[in-house]
Amino acid sequence: MKALTLDGTDLRLRDVPDPTPAPGEAVVRVVLAGVCNTDLELVRGYLGFRGVLGHEFVGVVEEGPEAWRGRRVVGEINFACGDCAFCARGLGRHCPTRRVMGIQGADGALAERVAVPVANLHAVPDAVPDLSAVFTEPLAAAFEIPEQVAIEPGRECLVLGDGKLGLLVAQVLHAAGARVRCVGHHEEKLARLARRGIETVLEADWTPAPAPLVVEATGTARGLAAAVAVTEPRGTLVLKSTVAEHPDVDLAPIVIHEISVVGSRCGPFAPALAALAADAIEVESLVSERLPLARAPEALERAARRDVLKVLVEP
Amino acid sequence: MKALTLDGTDLRLRDVPDPTPAPGEAVVRVVLAGVCNTDLELVRGYLGFRGVLGHEFVGVVEEGPEAWRGRRVVGEINFACGDCAFCARGLGRHCPTRRVMGIQGADGALAERVAVPVANLHAVPDAVPDLSAVFTEPLAAAFEIPEQVAIEPGRECLVLGDGKLGLLVAQVLHAAGARVRCVGHHEEKLARLARRGIETVLEADWTPAPAPLVVEATGTARGLAAAVAVTEPRGTLVLKSTVAEHPDVDLAPIVIHEISVVGSRCGPFAPALAALAADAIEVESLVSERLPLARAPEALERAARRDVLKVLVEP
Repeated sequence: MKALTLDGTDLRLRDVPDPTPAPGEAVVRVVLAGVCNTDLELVRGYLGFRGVLGHEFVGVVEEGPEAWRGRRVVGEINFACGDCAFCARGLGRHCPTRRVMGIQGADGALAERVAVPVANLHAVPDAVPDLSAVFTEPLAAAFEIPEQVAIEPGRECLVLGDGKLGLLVAQVLHAAGARVRCVGHHEEKLARLARRGIETVLEADWTPAPAPLVVEATGTARGLAAAVAVTEPRGTLVLKSTVAEHPDVDLAPIVIHEISVVGSRCGPFAPALAALAADAIEVESLVSERLPLARAPEALERAARRDVLKVLVEP
Repeated sequence: MKALTLDGTDLRLRDVPDPTPAPGEAVVRVVLAGVCNTDLELVRGYLGFRGVLGHEFVGVVEEGPEAWRGRRVVGEINFACGDCAFCARGLGRHCPTRRVMGIQGADGALAERVAVPVANLHAVPDAVPDLSAVFTEPLAAAFEIPEQVAIEPGRECLVLGDGKLGLLVAQVLHAAGARVRCVGHHEEKLARLARRGIETVLEADWTPAPAPLVVEATGTARGLAAAVAVTEPRGTLVLKSTVAEHPDVDLAPIVIHEISVVGSRCGPFAPALAALAADAIEVESLVSERLPLARAPEALERAARRDVLKVLVEP
């Protein structure tokens, strides 16, 4: 089959053998796959990943248990051992020996087929088209926030960043009843939120004012510094994106203002699928481009552009 | 009266007018005052403080309401407005217009007398000698941790740092029933904890292993980096000391491991006094030196030495 493979910084479309499922795994024929910023970081050498890239997908089960065959599915990306203390606590996403699809020790979904543990599969409701379902993984990451932080109705939330993650986070918090304000750089990206009734402001027009709950979704050191500075005393700062290595940021306000900083990564698929089925979250307008798998290397280049949101790849 | 004053970086003992209490304030004759690392930072220019230094003291009320006169007291250092939204939430320690004794907008206790809002006074139980009572403020800062983080009995806690704060934090967590391990640099400092049945380890002999609750009390960038690295996935990292400006630290593990970082500053006086009265915390062995107020500038120099713990000043 064709697959987008990474070996060091050598990124290319290759003919590779079809995945051979391990016990407990299914093989999914990929219908649509998404490009994530993490893919771009992996190409720059992050984590030293070798293998097939891609961890956002929707597809159809080709091989696996009878009950799953032919079903339209998405899949959680952390392949946990199921046996350790973290797995016993239901924290398989932090299993220390986990493999992570397209990121660490497991081939990914920018390919014609991908092997996924059956335990990681979620059936896609009929109401959710492929074009939405492919957003389940990044949307689940946004749904991680209400898992970690209580979002009372009317709670004032400031989201910094209008990239893919910021737009999803803002919508999730809005749907949870929070009073959301999203600060970004791109009028046309923010417009997607404004259409959903979410307050937006261009950074150039923004007067920072202390907020009780701030979500850092810019992935930049500058954004992180702004987020620390704007979180009010005893407030909560959710770090939703990793910042390039060692940011030059004054962390003293965290202590002085007794801020709680909550790191937030992958999240639960079930509420993400439910929100897509209920049309509570709008994702399709985030699609900037669709390219065939044969042009996958170009898809990653396109995804790195500032004016681009989600790039999809079709095997 | 004599007082240790700071003006820019000009630190000296001066004759200054006796404090004139504002409405609602008492005047306390200082019996013993402590030197804190924050005093050393203020001398280096932190916050641009001008006035009388010192925020750790025990003394006797000289002027004030009848009920307080003649009583032995300690005093909370944040002078809150009492009217704002933070004060209404009981968060006077974060009142945005607060003055802070010897730190910001209010004269401190390295003097013969100090003015303190009556609302900030706490009577010292007879069972607590002056030599212990003078530790109430820093001990309260350690008691802030159980206010912010649930300390279940047997909970595994790693305390990094064997300075004054680390030794107090380790004891407070131990007294709360946690299984505490303190990592430090000084055998003789750690010995104070070992005598109380707390596990200690010299950093040179330490093999870092992930811990669910870590307290950073070194105040160094290296300590902060070690603390981030050693906090287990979904664990809690309490930042108890501010780190010089912009530490060069990899913050990505906070996101990847979904760590909660909890900034922690001043704390409640009542449990600190109760613990001293019950002899649950031992502080007197932390006293390295006692100097008369006339030698207060020298007291700050002594306090800056690595092998010194608490330096006390006697007016």
